[in-house]
Amino acid sequence: MVTANPILIPELKLMFSEGDTAGLREVAEELHPATVAEFSEGLDDQEIWQLLHVAAIERQAEIFPYYSMTRQVELVKAADRVHLGSLLEWMAADNRDDLLRELDPELVDEILPLVAKAQRHDIRMLLSCPEDSAGALMTTEYASLPAEITAGEAVTRLRSQAPNSESIYYIYVLDSDRTLLGFVSLRDLIMARPTSLVSDLMQSDPISVRVEEPSEQVVQKLARFDFIAIPVVDDHNRLVGIVTHDDVLDAVRQDATDDAQRIGAIAPLGESYLEAAIVSMTWKRGVWLMILFATAAVTAMVLARSPAAFQTHMWLVAFIPLIIASGGNSGNQSATLVITALSTGDCRLADWPRILKRECVLGLLLGTLLAVPGYCLALVYAPDPIAAIVIPLTIFGVVMLGTMVGSILPLLFRSVGLDPALMSNPFVSAIVDIVGIVLYMLVAILFLG
Amino acid sequence: MVTANPILIPELKLMFSEGDTAGLREVAEELHPATVAEFSEGLDDQEIWQLLHVAAIERQAEIFPYYSMTRQVELVKAADRVHLGSLLEWMAADNRDDLLRELDPELVDEILPLVAKAQRHDIRMLLSCPEDSAGALMTTEYASLPAEITAGEAVTRLRSQAPNSESIYYIYVLDSDRTLLGFVSLRDLIMARPTSLVSDLMQSDPISVRVEEPSEQVVQKLARFDFIAIPVVDDHNRLVGIVTHDDVLDAVRQDATDDAQRIGAIAPLGESYLEAAIVSMTWKRGVWLMILFATAAVTAMVLARSPAAFQTHMWLVAFIPLIIASGGNSGNQSATLVITALSTGDCRLADWPRILKRECVLGLLLGTLLAVPGYCLALVYAPDPIAAIVIPLTIFGVVMLGTMVGSILPLLFRSVGLDPALMSNPFVSAIVDIVGIVLYMLVAILFLG
Repeated sequence: MVTANPILIPELKLMFSEGDTAGLREVAEELHPATVAEFSEGLDDQEIWQLLHVAAIERQAEIFPYYSMTRQVELVKAADRVHLGSLLEWMAADNRDDLLRELDPELVDEILPLVAKAQRHDIRMLLSCPEDSAGALMTTEYASLPAEITAGEAVTRLRSQAPNSESIYYIYVLDSDRTLLGFVSLRDLIMARPTSLVSDLMQSDPISVRVEEPSEQVVQKLARFDFIAIPVVDDHNRLVGIVTHDDVLDAVRQDATDDAQRIGAIAPLGESYLEAAIVSMTWKRGVWLMILFATAAVTAMVLARSPAAFQTHMWLVAFIPLIIASGGNSGNQSATLVITALSTGDCRLADWPRILKRECVLGLLLGTLLAVPGYCLALVYAPDPIAAIVIPLTIFGVVMLGTMVGSILPLLFRSVGLDPALMSNPFVSAIVDIVGIVLYMLVAILFLG
Repeated sequence: MVTANPILIPELKLMFSEGDTAGLREVAEELHPATVAEFSEGLDDQEIWQLLHVAAIERQAEIFPYYSMTRQVELVKAADRVHLGSLLEWMAADNRDDLLRELDPELVDEILPLVAKAQRHDIRMLLSCPEDSAGALMTTEYASLPAEITAGEAVTRLRSQAPNSESIYYIYVLDSDRTLLGFVSLRDLIMARPTSLVSDLMQSDPISVRVEEPSEQVVQKLARFDFIAIPVVDDHNRLVGIVTHDDVLDAVRQDATDDAQRIGAIAPLGESYLEAAIVSMTWKRGVWLMILFATAAVTAMVLARSPAAFQTHMWLVAFIPLIIASGGNSGNQSATLVITALSTGDCRLADWPRILKRECVLGLLLGTLLAVPGYCLALVYAPDPIAAIVIPLTIFGVVMLGTMVGSILPLLFRSVGLDPALMSNPFVSAIVDIVGIVLYMLVAILFLG
């Protein structure tokens, strides 16, 4: 998907008004499909269809997926149904799948009969894969060959299969029931003597992913082995599709943005910041602010029951924000580290004892680090050096609390199958706030009576 | 880079003790290089070198870059200098560059004379590129052809150039002074009639990046156009290297982790969470906790000068954490959204008027949303409904403040050339805390005297 670039809009509008089909065709046919989408995104739906229509259907199918998803959905609604059927036939299977997942199921049922039977089967198969699985990321277009032919024959067959550019570089070697035997790169076919057998050239026991494997693992495998594509197999090791590097890159970028937004306490927008509707953004932020508000309200209610300590020792009030911030910040650090380590594959759920040990040590160190200046500051406002000890002791306690809660919570979310980034940071702050205030009051009562 | 997998360590140790060179060679030569690194990372430095030495030097150069960077540096220090020279000659230019950037400059000066002259030139060129630029990401290995030959000749020449697998798929068409004229994909060469001219097959005016362009823009271009590689040119449009999809994927994953860690107020670890030394982690977290502590100390000092309002209206104390949380949370949301939008390219610095307008509207909406339950809660603790108005008014104010500061700060950082993720979220919280408390006291004085 591309960001709209309005620079060509006046020229395009002029071409429409003058009926300059040759000019429009030059734009639609000669530029990179991504650039065509970028320059025309600013047109209205009918104008975009007019522009697309001057190009061949293959070309239309290349350009279409580069519009933003919201725009693609709008364009589908404004489109002629029969034309839509052939457009879908020509679209790459993975892009088509992404689009159909965004449409009303009723609309999909209406469009599908217009798509040729072969593609209809692929569509149903891809749509049945759970989101965020290898199956949802994959495309069903790939090049395949039997094992017992020569490199020369292989190149001739590839010419007739004419696979598209993203899937020709690895060719999968299958037996008669489509079991994945190995793969051979186009490079190796070209470099080999034309009489060599594919079975001798191929890399056997190829690294693959299962169709139901989470997309996170697909990303990790493809990144680890620097593949252009990774094969996707079913439970019987039969090839069902491939995931290509460009879709993995898109998935990584989207996941990174989603995770960062979750860490910042926002339900992922899933669309471009400037394009998101104000009302949906208000909802996606408001719901979290309300949840965090509710937990902060609990903190307020706890504080409102504050014992005599606060009334007779007003200087303690001044330290409330500092204590809350110390716990919250250290907790957020721990949560962020554990979330990023889990999502990059740097650590697994099974590493939990090591993680907790690390965070415990860090809590001790960081708690001590903050307790020292805390004590210095307390000496300024506290009536005597003994009373001032309340502050460093509480700070030490909330930092320990923060690192523990911050590391346990994402692990807990992961262990029950939730996304660790989902609610960890906000919940860590909330828990640490409430428990921190209670701890503060307990320490104050203990030392000041 | 891979995570260590200890499963084969006992077998490898047995092979060493039995001097089973054939077994070791099978491990080192037959598995994927990434898998060899994964299985052997748990050995000590000398054992790893022993394992590598049974394989051919090309193979060693393939395996080596898959060890973690800290490990690669250790291995280099333990290595025989002459062997190291030939290993560096065989390593892919981009991996070699990554490694050399991590070594002591003195050690590099010591090793370089042992590397063949041709590669030495490449190394100096790559090392001179600033980090996070296209030049630092690129490799100098690419396949190139003149424009006036036929597709058949082109394939023959490619066979003799024998480029490595990641750089054979796009072939760059250059004129005699290496100016980039276009590119042709290996697919198009294979699919074309052998007598067609490369100049007719090639895509002219190819999308490229300049050697000094920031890596963020390289990522955006490669992702937008779904390329396997993107050419890097100098100021005179001469080809100097290419950036391949796998290096972009690694860069995106690393940047995403770094950004998330910065948003969580940690200096990016730059290494695996479980492998990072406790002392370096304490430092990378401690320095931020201390900075945030200093700003929280300012809040405490402001509160300590609290006017009579707090002493006579103890119920106001209970709302301090709630007010701070409301401002901080909404500010963090805005900062996170602007940071992610800037880093994905969804918006640019020039969009600042639109961004501020959006955040202003959202501040109004979200402020109102939180003010309502705030007033309800205040009614419980305030002496009368007029006094209770202090709370919703302050909440509305701090939410507005949060969205404004949260959106302006990352834009400000970007405009002076800093990373917007660098310090935005922590600073937003800090500013909103201090100003929020002042605002609270002002509103309280206004309404309660």
